[in-house]
Amino acid sequence: MPPSARPLIVIAGVGNGSGTGGSTARLFANQGYRVALIARGPDKLKRVADDVAAECSGAEVAAFPVESYGDQDMANAFTAIKAYEWPSGGATEIRVALYNASSGVRGPFLETTYDRLRRMLDRTIEGAFAFSRQVIEEFQKNELDGRGKRGTLLFTGATSSIRGNVLTSAFAAGKSAVRSLSQSLNKEFSPQNIHVAHVIIDGPILVDFHVETYGEPFKNKPDIRLDPRSIATSYLYLVNQDRSAWTWELDLRPAHEKW
Amino acid sequence: MPPSARPLIVIAGVGNGSGTGGSTARLFANQGYRVALIARGPDKLKRVADDVAAECSGAEVAAFPVESYGDQDMANAFTAIKAYEWPSGGATEIRVALYNASSGVRGPFLETTYDRLRRMLDRTIEGAFAFSRQVIEEFQKNELDGRGKRGTLLFTGATSSIRGNVLTSAFAAGKSAVRSLSQSLNKEFSPQNIHVAHVIIDGPILVDFHVETYGEPFKNKPDIRLDPRSIATSYLYLVNQDRSAWTWELDLRPAHEKW
Amino acid sequence: MPPSARPLIVIAGVGNGSGTGGSTARLFANQGYRVALIARGPDKLKRVADDVAAECSGAEVAAFPVESYGDQDMANAFTAIKAYEWPSGGATEIRVALYNASSGVRGPFLETTYDRLRRMLDRTIEGAFAFSRQVIEEFQKNELDGRGKRGTLLFTGATSSIRGNVLTSAFAAGKSAVRSLSQSLNKEFSPQNIHVAHVIIDGPILVDFHVETYGEPFKNKPDIRLDPRSIATSYLYLVNQDRSAWTWELDLRPAHEKW
Amino acid sequence: MPPSARPLIVIAGVGNGSGTGGSTARLFANQGYRVALIARGPDKLKRVADDVAAECSGAEVAAFPVESYGDQDMANAFTAIKAYEWPSGGATEIRVALYNASSGVRGPFLETTYDRLRRMLDRTIEGAFAFSRQVIEEFQKNELDGRGKRGTLLFTGATSSIRGNVLTSAFAAGKSAVRSLSQSLNKEFSPQNIHVAHVIIDGPILVDFHVETYGEPFKNKPDIRLDPRSIATSYLYLVNQDRSAWTWELDLRPAHEKW
Repeated sequence: MPPSARPLIVIAGVGNGSGTGGSTARLFANQGYRVALIARGPDKLKRVADDVAAECSGAEVAAFPVESYGDQDMANAFTAIKAYEWPSGGATEIRVALYNASSGVRGPFLETTYDRLRRMLDRTIEGAFAFSRQVIEEFQKNELDGRGKRGTLLFTGATSSIRGNVLTSAFAAGKSAVRSLSQSLNKEFSPQNIHVAHVIIDGPILVDFHVETYGEPFKNKPDIRLDPRSIATSYLYLVNQDRSAWTWELDLRPAHEKW
Repeated sequence: MPPSARPLIVIAGVGNGSGTGGSTARLFANQGYRVALIARGPDKLKRVADDVAAECSGAEVAAFPVESYGDQDMANAFTAIKAYEWPSGGATEIRVALYNASSGVRGPFLETTYDRLRRMLDRTIEGAFAFSRQVIEEFQKNELDGRGKRGTLLFTGATSSIRGNVLTSAFAAGKSAVRSLSQSLNKEFSPQNIHVAHVIIDGPILVDFHVETYGEPFKNKPDIRLDPRSIATSYLYLVNQDRSAWTWELDLRPAHEKW
Repeated sequence: MPPSARPLIVIAGVGNGSGTGGSTARLFANQGYRVALIARGPDKLKRVADDVAAECSGAEVAAFPVESYGDQDMANAFTAIKAYEWPSGGATEIRVALYNASSGVRGPFLETTYDRLRRMLDRTIEGAFAFSRQVIEEFQKNELDGRGKRGTLLFTGATSSIRGNVLTSAFAAGKSAVRSLSQSLNKEFSPQNIHVAHVIIDGPILVDFHVETYGEPFKNKPDIRLDPRSIATSYLYLVNQDRSAWTWELDLRPAHEKW
Repeated sequence: MPPSARPLIVIAGVGNGSGTGGSTARLFANQGYRVALIARGPDKLKRVADDVAAECSGAEVAAFPVESYGDQDMANAFTAIKAYEWPSGGATEIRVALYNASSGVRGPFLETTYDRLRRMLDRTIEGAFAFSRQVIEEFQKNELDGRGKRGTLLFTGATSSIRGNVLTSAFAAGKSAVRSLSQSLNKEFSPQNIHVAHVIIDGPILVDFHVETYGEPFKNKPDIRLDPRSIATSYLYLVNQDRSAWTWELDLRPAHEKW
């Protein structure tokens, strides 16, 4: 990329910033990437962006709240990202994108109401399609970077991405659809040197709500939960893979996870 | 089932009757099942129902057109099925159900507009959820039959159910979601002796529009296309499996299909 | 096949006759097939053959004991099968073959001695290769039958065919290799109208040694164990599939099996 | 590990040093690992070891030739590795191991003679079992390192590890067995903080014999072949994963590979 253009990562879905999206934002900020965060809930999103900026000296982080992950809202978010004036000035190129949103609908099939199903479809499947469309169109404008790539599009998957189960009929359907999308995109856009990867997270992540559920000791048992910083490290590794040997899919789980 | 109750098969998605849905209707009609057909397009559906009835002597076939495969329309269709008065009278039990609908969106990812995606989601995923809800609730009311089952719910899958590819980003996402749903349902409802199975059709089916595309000789080359009657035979086999050894998934392809 | 030729099924691996091999022998004998049984242990094999013959009126069953499932012993067994003079006379065609042998090595990896591994490799992998070679060469001599096939080669698989696990390092390695072989053979010989299929048995089978382990009630709980007669029925279904729609793989499990 | 102990990587299978094994040796030597190479053919192996030592300043590389990958030969090789006196002295700990050997038998099934099959079984499956046994027993003696691991055992896989095909009946059977072994080992030894991973190489690697086959231009087309240095980088990444989020399996392919 030209010397004047700084690379940017777009992340959709960051929760309260304590999980995968937040850790990825921090890690890439520290690697010199500008960070654009997309999520619903403008106040919470603003706080996450501020936190990341505060923790990573020199980081440029901006929040782009959306009302939904639907097609039009997503297009608007990308328009805003491209028009954004970063403090340090100069051109920006979207080089990395992470779709980290999903809707954790769990429960017996017969209690999965139509409304809950719709929410899953919106956030998980439609959001992934809308996000991917924007990202691919941006990547296509990029030159090859030093690794022979125009960009890397990452998806956060889950055990449910490859297995339906008793309480996950809606969640697993959505995650399976997104995994399939990531494979189609990998096959369709690899010939254009656009890298699409899917990461299966198989185990509980060390995020605030899990600490609340499982108690403080959960924090200090690295064998049983995924550190989101380790997940972010795997994303950085994928981004740094060169075109001669890149990965569509890998799994991540804690050492003591039964599977 | 009590001697007075005749078993009924509900089939959603029958096209013009020349494919899997139509063949399944004929085969089960000939096996003594009442046949309820659900599809969009009331006129075409009526013709299919009449054709099946005409070809299978003594068959009882009825059409239940819907405007969409959405939740409410599907619920209405099942209400109509349960209230239907069959010519030969007596009680009916829904014992078999086939979800055979899908939306064949194909094409480059960037040409898959939001509207096309929505159509896929409606017919493939939302339809499968809505249909399954109605079917499972009906099956739960049934006694065990002679094979130790309350009912069998079948899904027609495709190669795209297990593999994303260059021109199938939307189609494969939808089919993957439905496959995942079928696995979740199998795991959740097998303990209630409800059998859920998924059949991967890997190859072109001998239906009217394929004959138009590939020409007449296509008809007479059983090594390269699936006879829908053979698919229907596999569905009947699955329905006849007993509870000690039943199948979640099988694949079907013509002898000379490359895979 | 010519009117004078009776079809024959070869089954390798029958244990004491109470399981999958024995049930398949009985079912096919009752369908008019001649039955050739291959196994180690001539006395036990003779008893199984006699039992099957006694239970199926008019059945023609013969035992072909081997010292090992190795290449040469297997070739000798097939030479003997082809030279065998059946009571009712006339020509015979090998039309169906089932590889049902395997070596149930289970245990911690570090206790899997080289000798136990060798036994697994012999019976599971080398045996499957040796058996398949003989079978394919015979099938190639056959004319197409009424279903457009020259023959059907079946493999009995297990959960371990698709999943390594804590106590199954050797067993799962062997079963995975055989599953892979069955897929290669399906792809290589389908163009010659030879059908190769693989059946994943996921759960305990109702055989004598399981009854001893789990007690008599196990017999009467069809929801938790596979009836070997139901497995045999699935094999017959696969054999009867026509060339327009045949299956490489299906799974079988009891209704209440957790998976 | 104690300050006096240097970490060691054992690599089985290095060919002429131009491929995955050789690149992994170089990369880990440059990272400060001692390198023990196991292969058949003492002269060729010596040359590879000398080459690696010459290219990596300060590297400690030693060759441990074997006559076969059988159980006893492998045990002897590990005895020699453990007794080896490294130039710089001090203790050594085996911390990383790569099983990179296999036997590339390809061809029609009926031409896969028993001898060729045996060779595949020896080098691919028996070798993997023998190597893993030695490695696991060594890892169990290690303390946890800074990443919470006792060691990392890597396997080089291939497309054939997950798919049988027309000309790969023997090769794919062997690779499937090794993949299954790696999964069993991962599940059995992760609770002991031993990390086992499997890498699917899907495409041609830039090694000398491929350059001879495809010509010089093959070298300069990074979109169509895997650079073995990039494969080695992925192995280093896996070794550096911490216990909170480690990978069993990832795939690697060139950007323009069709799959």
